[in-house]
Amino acid sequence: MRNSLTAGLLIIGNEILSGRTREANQQTLGEALARHGIRLKETRVVEDRQEAIVQAVNALRATYDFVFTTGGIGPTHDDITTESIAAAFGRVIQEVPEAVRRLREYYGAEGMNEARLKMARVVAGAHLLDNPVSAAPGFRIENVYVLPGVPRILQAMLPGILSGLPDGVPIRSTSVTGWLRESEIAEELTAIQAAFPHLDIGSYPFVRDNRLGTSLVVRGTDDIARVAAVNTITEMLSTHGVESSIEPTV
Amino acid sequence: MRNSLTAGLLIIGNEILSGRTREANQQTLGEALARHGIRLKETRVVEDRQEAIVQAVNALRATYDFVFTTGGIGPTHDDITTESIAAAFGRVIQEVPEAVRRLREYYGAEGMNEARLKMARVVAGAHLLDNPVSAAPGFRIENVYVLPGVPRILQAMLPGILSGLPDGVPIRSTSVTGWLRESEIAEELTAIQAAFPHLDIGSYPFVRDNRLGTSLVVRGTDDIARVAAVNTITEMLSTHGVESSIEPTV
Repeated sequence: MRNSLTAGLLIIGNEILSGRTREANQQTLGEALARHGIRLKETRVVEDRQEAIVQAVNALRATYDFVFTTGGIGPTHDDITTESIAAAFGRVIQEVPEAVRRLREYYGAEGMNEARLKMARVVAGAHLLDNPVSAAPGFRIENVYVLPGVPRILQAMLPGILSGLPDGVPIRSTSVTGWLRESEIAEELTAIQAAFPHLDIGSYPFVRDNRLGTSLVVRGTDDIARVAAVNTITEMLSTHGVESSIEPTV
Repeated sequence: MRNSLTAGLLIIGNEILSGRTREANQQTLGEALARHGIRLKETRVVEDRQEAIVQAVNALRATYDFVFTTGGIGPTHDDITTESIAAAFGRVIQEVPEAVRRLREYYGAEGMNEARLKMARVVAGAHLLDNPVSAAPGFRIENVYVLPGVPRILQAMLPGILSGLPDGVPIRSTSVTGWLRESEIAEELTAIQAAFPHLDIGSYPFVRDNRLGTSLVVRGTDDIARVAAVNTITEMLSTHGVESSIEPTV
């Protein structure tokens, strides 16, 4: 792969692991980062437990250019992300006047209470992130972006966050779909992948309307190589007598 | 937590990290394991890269009672899970006659090719798992269960796998939903969690029909404590003048 910028994602929450809540942020982030030229390389999901969060965030921030965390920055007892990030960085937590101001604006001065004030306390030295939907600010400390878990809020914050990140070369993918089993073309695909070492070629079988098909996804930062690989795949499929369709590049 | 059996999940596949494919197995596995008394404690998603797979599976199998992997056991070049698991265990890969027999039965003797035979090669010493849908067998080696990524196939294999696992005490949860903001009850919730240390009490805000609500999820293996905690929460909500509804226990 010839993409220099990488990211890791840490999803924090018992509700994801128990199956109560279906995780919805990884796909959003993976796609948005790829368009921005940042490759999401690893995701971890851990419980609301400080030791687990500290260990995971320290492993990820040492490995990838950027780390995003989701979940656990609300006002209740099970929201322990901020204190866990502070522990991971060996820093204290500080009340940030600007965050208090935003919370007062949102809840009204008479609506402030201890639980809401908790959301104005972030890791010392962190930068507040803009949250256009609710008042709880996410924050950034070094290469770690601490975000809320509610998908609607995360999505609203994402454009602002991305605009502050350095641009990599966008990672695009083109999918070729043919009505055959992947095991019929495995050897040819191996050769095509070898011919385009800087691209990722993935093979994904599926069943639709009781027919077996395979989607071949060509992904990478080199537009010319990607088009060449797609053409090679289409020709290969036609030698099998299989018609193929090319989906729009994303 | 008083649940002795734990599990980790390793999801293998570039398509999940890039956002092309929405991950669908974690929720299925998390729920099924909880019903069986096994707590899913951590999930990792890694790329189709041997080093990443080896590192993750070795970390997880040393930490949890059981590890499940999904994805990467098909016939194509990007299916590298089996060789990566072999590397993690320091073992070779062997063709298993029983697996060849199942593949021949599925594809027909004339339909066998090198790519399909690849699916009959598993880590030496592994036990084949039953796959009622397609012919590619998953396998188990020590405490690691290597499963396909296609949700429909994984779901079909799950009952057979679970029946071979030791039973823990089922982890059940009861949700209480009230129409208020979680920040209004955060302090009381902290006290209730402290009163029931063996239960997990989670607070999840939501917006429905333009109204703000909070779901309080009480989860654990102790049925009597769970009922008591739910009653305490319901009473607490009523002191706020909030009507609450209790969802059926799952």
